[in-house]
Amino acid sequence: MSRPEASRRPIGRRPGDPEATKQGILDAARQAFATSGFDRATIRTIAESADVDPSLVLHHFGNKQTLFARAHELPFDPDELVTSVIETPLSERGEVLARLYLTVITAEHGTPLSLMRAAATNDEAAVMMREFVDATLLARAAELAPGPGGELRLAIAGAQLFGIGFARAVLGISTLRRRSTEELVGVVAPLIQQLLEPAGPEH
Amino acid sequence: MSRPEASRRPIGRRPGDPEATKQGILDAARQAFATSGFDRATIRTIAESADVDPSLVLHHFGNKQTLFARAHELPFDPDELVTSVIETPLSERGEVLARLYLTVITAEHGTPLSLMRAAATNDEAAVMMREFVDATLLARAAELAPGPGGELRLAIAGAQLFGIGFARAVLGISTLRRRSTEELVGVVAPLIQQLLEPAGPEH
Repeated sequence: MSRPEASRRPIGRRPGDPEATKQGILDAARQAFATSGFDRATIRTIAESADVDPSLVLHHFGNKQTLFARAHELPFDPDELVTSVIETPLSERGEVLARLYLTVITAEHGTPLSLMRAAATNDEAAVMMREFVDATLLARAAELAPGPGGELRLAIAGAQLFGIGFARAVLGISTLRRRSTEELVGVVAPLIQQLLEPAGPEH
Repeated sequence: MSRPEASRRPIGRRPGDPEATKQGILDAARQAFATSGFDRATIRTIAESADVDPSLVLHHFGNKQTLFARAHELPFDPDELVTSVIETPLSERGEVLARLYLTVITAEHGTPLSLMRAAATNDEAAVMMREFVDATLLARAAELAPGPGGELRLAIAGAQLFGIGFARAVLGISTLRRRSTEELVGVVAPLIQQLLEPAGPEH
């Protein structure tokens, strides 16, 4: 905080150990996200508390979403995941999104689920998750779920998938546990598909 | 436990204060559900630890579901709620269930939500919730969601509604918070309706 300017931007300060530098950045990021939330934690402040230059953070992690994912050991890159869904033809996205969610995102004992558990009982963790979902998923609603009300339809799709993952892996509802992911995708994908299409669910 | 038989069934032991007796039963029930889960906590063991006759528990609370609801101050009677949905024509159930869930069950700061929060981080609470959902909702799948695969369709419907309530009230996803419950019902009800009908979602 009150450090002199010279030590605040120590470019290449640990040139001999890039892994230690990366770990320092990840530790600083996890701390910053937990205390400030996703929005207010910036690449600049994270770099500062890790004693590195912001350009080094971007060099290693690309952007804040990826940094968040790596800091929390998420088993996917959120930006790449969303981009891959957007590159899928609209008519197949329901199935792709349902499968991605139920396999990758809510894999049992996975870190995304730990974050969700934390968000359930800790207000700071809830703010962090909400801002991360906003920045990663809902900010791209126009591409993911085109048409009027797309952001609402996308938010409902995400919440529904989250609910199924949670009921299955956290509550352990046996009707859902007994079924394979593909069986669940078979029932859920048509619903998600309706939410992603411009007309929305039929009334 | 090792009490003599005479004191184990003290019928009318506190005849002067029925409210204190009821409170004693509720305290014993909450404790029993938390430690043994919903299935293994029986009316008999709860009566025993409250020092009353099992018939008095049934007299005051009717059945174990209602006792659970009252012990956790749920703002509804689960048995009556499910029965009211079953008495609704199948073609209107999606809307009725979506509205009930989003208004009554996941009301912000409500006790059902507190139970869900607890279940997210505490294994005993998760077991209790799972068994309660099984006994209250999924056990009546044949009536609620008739036809093949009804139990799976009902479980998915419940999990989806839970996810929306959770994303809105716990995570505070702003896209969902900004909308009225009726706006959400308008988008969600057609999906729940498809899940409750024998044919299930179209493929």
